[in-house]
Amino acid sequence: MSDPASSFGDRLAACVAERESQIVLGLDPDPMALWPGVEVPAQGAPAERAAAAVLEHCRALIDAAGSACVAVKPQLARFEALGAAGWRALETTVAYAREQGLLVIADAKRGDIDVTARAYARALVGSLDTPAGPVNGLGADMVTVNPLMGSDALQPFVEVAREAGAGLLVLVRTSNPGAADIQDQELASGGTVWERIAVLVDELGRTGAGEAERSGPEGGSKSGLSDVGAVMGATVPVHLQRARELMGHAVFLLPGVGAQGGRVEDLAPAFSIGRAGGLVTASRSIAGAYVANGRGPRAAACAAAERLRELAWSL
Amino acid sequence: MSDPASSFGDRLAACVAERESQIVLGLDPDPMALWPGVEVPAQGAPAERAAAAVLEHCRALIDAAGSACVAVKPQLARFEALGAAGWRALETTVAYAREQGLLVIADAKRGDIDVTARAYARALVGSLDTPAGPVNGLGADMVTVNPLMGSDALQPFVEVAREAGAGLLVLVRTSNPGAADIQDQELASGGTVWERIAVLVDELGRTGAGEAERSGPEGGSKSGLSDVGAVMGATVPVHLQRARELMGHAVFLLPGVGAQGGRVEDLAPAFSIGRAGGLVTASRSIAGAYVANGRGPRAAACAAAERLRELAWSL
Repeated sequence: MSDPASSFGDRLAACVAERESQIVLGLDPDPMALWPGVEVPAQGAPAERAAAAVLEHCRALIDAAGSACVAVKPQLARFEALGAAGWRALETTVAYAREQGLLVIADAKRGDIDVTARAYARALVGSLDTPAGPVNGLGADMVTVNPLMGSDALQPFVEVAREAGAGLLVLVRTSNPGAADIQDQELASGGTVWERIAVLVDELGRTGAGEAERSGPEGGSKSGLSDVGAVMGATVPVHLQRARELMGHAVFLLPGVGAQGGRVEDLAPAFSIGRAGGLVTASRSIAGAYVANGRGPRAAACAAAERLRELAWSL
Repeated sequence: MSDPASSFGDRLAACVAERESQIVLGLDPDPMALWPGVEVPAQGAPAERAAAAVLEHCRALIDAAGSACVAVKPQLARFEALGAAGWRALETTVAYAREQGLLVIADAKRGDIDVTARAYARALVGSLDTPAGPVNGLGADMVTVNPLMGSDALQPFVEVAREAGAGLLVLVRTSNPGAADIQDQELASGGTVWERIAVLVDELGRTGAGEAERSGPEGGSKSGLSDVGAVMGATVPVHLQRARELMGHAVFLLPGVGAQGGRVEDLAPAFSIGRAGGLVTASRSIAGAYVANGRGPRAAACAAAERLRELAWSL
């Protein structure tokens, strides 16, 4: 059995190669804007009924667009807003995506200290020991995390993810205008806050990527990809070159294409370390494609995802 | 009916005055370290059994120490690690605490952009419209949020919380050593990252506190407390004076007392704007008091919480 510590990068690279896709299907289900035709059960508590509809919507979206994608990215907020019923819908959605051969990125943006960070990591990519026996977490392959609390808050995530053969995606420079408020601030010591975070990401990932480099093509990871990646907004491609210089082994999750104004064509620096060096995530521009083009939601989503796939693959 | 927008500060101040306490009881249940005597049901799936035990532990802790406290602070990571069953235990714990007259601080540290931030806020302090009818969220009175993504990511939290009459607690300067990695970095424009966040907190809270100031003692909020507060680690009391200068209307949530080394005696600057200006949160030093002092867990927790209550109240 391969060492999970060195296998995340290879596993991701193999998935990207096999599916010929770097596209991540965002799952952000708003119960008031589900696909036409999705049924809301007539019986049950509101949360149960809404969660059932959300699950059906997510399954339909995966069926329609999953074949053009390498991963799905459920947005945990949408499921949490339906409480325990929503969390169960999330678990079922994750299991369904994995059955289709898709990787799962839990978009959780969690961040906390020591034992709490460890509990979040166990919830999302690991498992928890209890007096009733081990309780499996969500089983995601990657999880987004927030680095504001510093490296001692990220370390438990790294440890649990590495043990599980999973990867982290640390918020480095996000895609929203407000990213300027903190992340773009210039430091007295030079560089910006986001560049400082990028250095932390590179340091935390060195064990993972370093092992890969040492082990070479004969064993362990061959991809050179670390298990500590970065979220880099596709809305600010001007930062991508610099981010790649600072994080030479990090997988970049690239949100902001489509609705937020980012263009796939501008993302080439992410892929300079290989095709799995960048993951282009799209949500509204796939799930909502039917609104603009007048086709059925399934056909429109499939076409939108395939178009993104071709664009990114040709970079 | 009073306007919830201006009522949060008054409501908090009234609770603090009535209960004569500024102590927050942290609920961080580790299933492998529950109180002796807590029963794990023999039947059911591991997650269900562990969640039942966690719920019993939390109830016992609230029964023992709640009377010396003004609020409970469930750590969401601990419940998420038990999946849907854990989320249900969280909902039941929150309802139980409210029945005992305690406020609830959802320690979630969420942070995300626009529609996602709104979904998190609805999950924790608001409610969500669905085709099956409205789904109530957790019903917390306050929620901790992460400001790394900037003011446009905080704004939806502010709006939903204000509509619900709830409050936010923004991470400003946390209690862990790693806070130095990002939060303590000096900016080229002067001050540190955390001071920059403090300015954002003050700006976001101005509507809430401003209304209070304008309306005066005749109507609206009298406390002068804003509905946008700050998490300020009790481990760095040296920053509290400066934080109070920058955030003159913010409630400070003060973690880090006890196990992390912070001392209640050093927290006076938080209370310079009134007794509800600071909330001292303690978890291990209450729930785990019995380990050191040899008394039963209930008596030890009660005594530890009461000791903290007296210390803080006398400042």
